[in-house]
Amino acid sequence: MKRRILGIDPGSRITGFGVIDIVGNQRHYVASGAIRTPQGATLAERVKVLVHGIHQVIDTYQPTESALEQVFVNVNPAATLMLGQARGACMTALVLRDLPVAEYTALQVKQSVVGQGKAPKEQVQYMVVRMLNLSGTPQADAADALAVALTHASHSSGAVGKLALQGLKVRGGRLV
Amino acid sequence: MKRRILGIDPGSRITGFGVIDIVGNQRHYVASGAIRTPQGATLAERVKVLVHGIHQVIDTYQPTESALEQVFVNVNPAATLMLGQARGACMTALVLRDLPVAEYTALQVKQSVVGQGKAPKEQVQYMVVRMLNLSGTPQADAADALAVALTHASHSSGAVGKLALQGLKVRGGRLV
Repeated sequence: MKRRILGIDPGSRITGFGVIDIVGNQRHYVASGAIRTPQGATLAERVKVLVHGIHQVIDTYQPTESALEQVFVNVNPAATLMLGQARGACMTALVLRDLPVAEYTALQVKQSVVGQGKAPKEQVQYMVVRMLNLSGTPQADAADALAVALTHASHSSGAVGKLALQGLKVRGGRLV
Repeated sequence: MKRRILGIDPGSRITGFGVIDIVGNQRHYVASGAIRTPQGATLAERVKVLVHGIHQVIDTYQPTESALEQVFVNVNPAATLMLGQARGACMTALVLRDLPVAEYTALQVKQSVVGQGKAPKEQVQYMVVRMLNLSGTPQADAADALAVALTHASHSSGAVGKLALQGLKVRGGRLV
């Protein structure tokens, strides 16, 4: 059975999305891009663009599950609030299409894609290009979203993955 | 023409709602309450409860416009992010039902309902009870949501109100 994962990297101005297919042990690139919300617009207008954008991606590519990056908690409270609002809108867009949503921190994404949590952003992008056999480098937020989708793919292969999501430790495909 | 306003006071655990009718210069209470999201649940589960709750209120009472309180930016980044996510979910729920959404800060609500921005919460609740002729005091978050709806009612009576929302000053019903 083919699994199709939608990864989302939420941002208050640009939200990245990436869609990949998992067939057996293979991962295939399907689509990716960025949803830009109009600057200087009201929150209502920005949320409308964001949610309609995500719904368009879901309706076009029909993913079977989704993964949302847990955002960085900024030191600036106003920026943190804005980012939280965008992330809440993304989460709403996903649950309203009845998609299961997994959540991963930036640390988990880096560990999963690069192999170590302190990897620079460029290395994550490089690994996304390699793992999905892409001919070019996607836009930065789109690449991050693909990385979240890839993280979900390796965390959620079958029942062990599901247990891992509940906080249990997995090593080499077994619970430890 | 009757206007029906839905006020929302977003919170990461409890979100208040309040519905009032405006007929001429009169304000009438329609409904109010609180949507509680399950503690310890995932963000996806909490967002689902929140959005379905708001959509149930909209479908039941059919408001013609809405007002969302601008939340306090907490000093704790994790709490600010949570609150932002809840507020983003509320905003999404409103725009997906094509409701116009106005936004008011707690200061604007206090100034509008009590007459001064530093009024304690209890005084806001007391004024809500008086202005809407209620026989009892509503739950705290429901009262805050009714206060947001009342604020919108007095800020948005006709064209002058709309200009005021765009940042122009209004005094005694005239632009100054």
